[in-house]
Amino acid sequence: MPHESTERAERIIARCREIAACTELPGETTRTFLAPSMHEVHTLLREWMEAAEMSVSVDGIGNLRGLYPGVSASSGRLVMGSHLDTVPNAGAFDGILGVVLAVALVEELRGERLPFAIEIIGFSEEEGVRFGKPYLGSLAFVGALDSDALHRTDARNISMERAVWEFGLDPGTIADAAVSGDAFAYLEVHIEQGPVLESEALQLGVVSAIAGQTRMLLGFSGQANHAGTTPMHLRHDAMAAAAEWICSVEKLALKTPGLAATVGRVETRPGAGNVIAGDVIASLDVRHAEDAIRRGAVSELLGAASDAAEARGVDVDILRASHEDAVPTDASLSKLLAEAAASVGYTVKTMVSGAGHDARVVAQRLPIAMLFLRSPAGLSHHPDENVLVEDVEAALATSLAFVRLLAASDAPRRFRKEVHA
Amino acid sequence: MPHESTERAERIIARCREIAACTELPGETTRTFLAPSMHEVHTLLREWMEAAEMSVSVDGIGNLRGLYPGVSASSGRLVMGSHLDTVPNAGAFDGILGVVLAVALVEELRGERLPFAIEIIGFSEEEGVRFGKPYLGSLAFVGALDSDALHRTDARNISMERAVWEFGLDPGTIADAAVSGDAFAYLEVHIEQGPVLESEALQLGVVSAIAGQTRMLLGFSGQANHAGTTPMHLRHDAMAAAAEWICSVEKLALKTPGLAATVGRVETRPGAGNVIAGDVIASLDVRHAEDAIRRGAVSELLGAASDAAEARGVDVDILRASHEDAVPTDASLSKLLAEAAASVGYTVKTMVSGAGHDARVVAQRLPIAMLFLRSPAGLSHHPDENVLVEDVEAALATSLAFVRLLAASDAPRRFRKEVHA
Repeated sequence: MPHESTERAERIIARCREIAACTELPGETTRTFLAPSMHEVHTLLREWMEAAEMSVSVDGIGNLRGLYPGVSASSGRLVMGSHLDTVPNAGAFDGILGVVLAVALVEELRGERLPFAIEIIGFSEEEGVRFGKPYLGSLAFVGALDSDALHRTDARNISMERAVWEFGLDPGTIADAAVSGDAFAYLEVHIEQGPVLESEALQLGVVSAIAGQTRMLLGFSGQANHAGTTPMHLRHDAMAAAAEWICSVEKLALKTPGLAATVGRVETRPGAGNVIAGDVIASLDVRHAEDAIRRGAVSELLGAASDAAEARGVDVDILRASHEDAVPTDASLSKLLAEAAASVGYTVKTMVSGAGHDARVVAQRLPIAMLFLRSPAGLSHHPDENVLVEDVEAALATSLAFVRLLAASDAPRRFRKEVHA
Repeated sequence: MPHESTERAERIIARCREIAACTELPGETTRTFLAPSMHEVHTLLREWMEAAEMSVSVDGIGNLRGLYPGVSASSGRLVMGSHLDTVPNAGAFDGILGVVLAVALVEELRGERLPFAIEIIGFSEEEGVRFGKPYLGSLAFVGALDSDALHRTDARNISMERAVWEFGLDPGTIADAAVSGDAFAYLEVHIEQGPVLESEALQLGVVSAIAGQTRMLLGFSGQANHAGTTPMHLRHDAMAAAAEWICSVEKLALKTPGLAATVGRVETRPGAGNVIAGDVIASLDVRHAEDAIRRGAVSELLGAASDAAEARGVDVDILRASHEDAVPTDASLSKLLAEAAASVGYTVKTMVSGAGHDARVVAQRLPIAMLFLRSPAGLSHHPDENVLVEDVEAALATSLAFVRLLAASDAPRRFRKEVHA
């Protein structure tokens, strides 16, 4: 039985758009880690949080934190949140929607005390734009932001340490940003940033895992030569080898359920129409919810690259490689989230998140759950990024039902035992 | 019975290397159309030509022309030559070898008069580097250099007309550069610039045709999207489409005798490892000695591009296209050239030239023949471009024998009738 009015969902959208106006570059939304415009975001959120009876603070890495107390000081806390920073020329919903929706959830409680506190965190950094390292806010939250990171510098040669000072914070207090000892779970509401829910005409998704990811850069090295005077059988064409391999990448991903494999960047050298490519640089991005399947796929694709290269007297090398394992969400929390959705009349899709999120990092310390909202046209990281008002309502109603189910269950007590075992 | 001494071939190589020192950029060989260093080239060649009893002039487009008279003023003329300009950072033999070798041929006549004159032309421009238009020298020679070309400008905004004046020539005399009425044939000696002769352990090639060529730039337009959140079945991956097509290009060329088909330039946009390519720009270069086969191949490859694109919901467009038909050499001259080689003990390969040459243009007015020398490692347009002394000797001996066979035959009279019919 969906909520009858769209008013509260419309207010969430309006607030996201109001925050989108806080930007480093007029005319677009670009708001990187600790940019001056982040002060305006804090001011708006603080105002809304305090009106909802929350106490607000900013920790040493710039995370905005609002606490809505539970029935007693020792009643544990549910953490909700997402990030406040954006990519360059961003939309109005990636990250910030999860924070604004959490505030609306507390507002809907209208002062009612739950058996646990709710802490809302607006993480200061997730996108990795300013210092080339993502998840700064959530890493500090789980106590995993190494001190070397503070010496990184941005494009204007400002160190992270100085950026923290300039924002009015003390880098010496970053350790105090760590998760409170009474926290027992983390819920993140986020736009899907992909086309799956829309393609299945569904509004909401419950995330079963954040996919593991392998990124590589391969170099195919053949021999540049004249395209007119070098017969086919005497060529060492790096682009022909790379093309055969790219076909293998697509083919394997199409036949392996849940596998996403992409060659998004290809560069030919010398890169002239009348010269056989001597060198090709090609990226590989492989993601899957199961690490063994991802690793097996990567191995198979490296074999395919070797075969395609060898057939043409071309060499292939791995120029760069990085791997991140998959992060499963907590099964019982995710089950509760799906039950919550059903209780207010929504069908959810259990799905894998192909993109990373703060929840990936928070999972180092807390059981996590994630609720996805449909992304119209699958669009994100783009000024046209959008949400539908009925989907925001669905996400708010589901989150509220989740909090009430949690309050009625022994889950908080059980989780606190597990987390702090 | 190859010539016993290598002295005359060594002198040809030494002269080519002496000319390679005439350059716009110290430390490398870069000599574009009418560069000041071309005066030094003219000075050297004039000296050698005059010592061989030739009269020397420079025509209105900057072609250096040396005339070695025949037994009488009305005895017709054989034209020999190649180009004096180079690509940037060139080798020492592309073009210039054909001119220097022709001078050595006249030297070997030691004043003996033939039934026809020999005119040696050092064409001023073939590579198209300075004004983006190739064959300027030979186009003027066949009377096909349109006057619009004079208004082209180079990288420093100097017009071709002004460049001609600055070199000390009068653009008004370009029409006088046209082929003499008594010319009956053209022979060009040139390095192969490819690996075919070397791969077959042969020294010389007789060119049967200069391949026709189609150049295209194709644009594949799909949809850029997140590599993690967009499942395979919901993608419109322009690079996957392009890769399948590139495989088709290679496959068709491998199974079609004499076809060279190359995709040398590929650009992905946005070109990030974690973003599915929304757009791909890819070049296509197709060459064959038979125009019908080339046209059929291009048509088949455009069909393959459409199929690969359509299967992925991707569009494909032809962004640019140009076509040049094949130019056959004269069959009887080529036969005489092969007989000449055999008469002095060399086996020649009859082969297609995949690259263009001045002969391609000269063929508009005269029957042409081309003699190729083996290119070590197939290398050209590169400082390491080289020739073997025994191959230079073979080319000189063959050219000399060709001239003597021509002198003993009725070919000159027959050709003059055909050319001026």
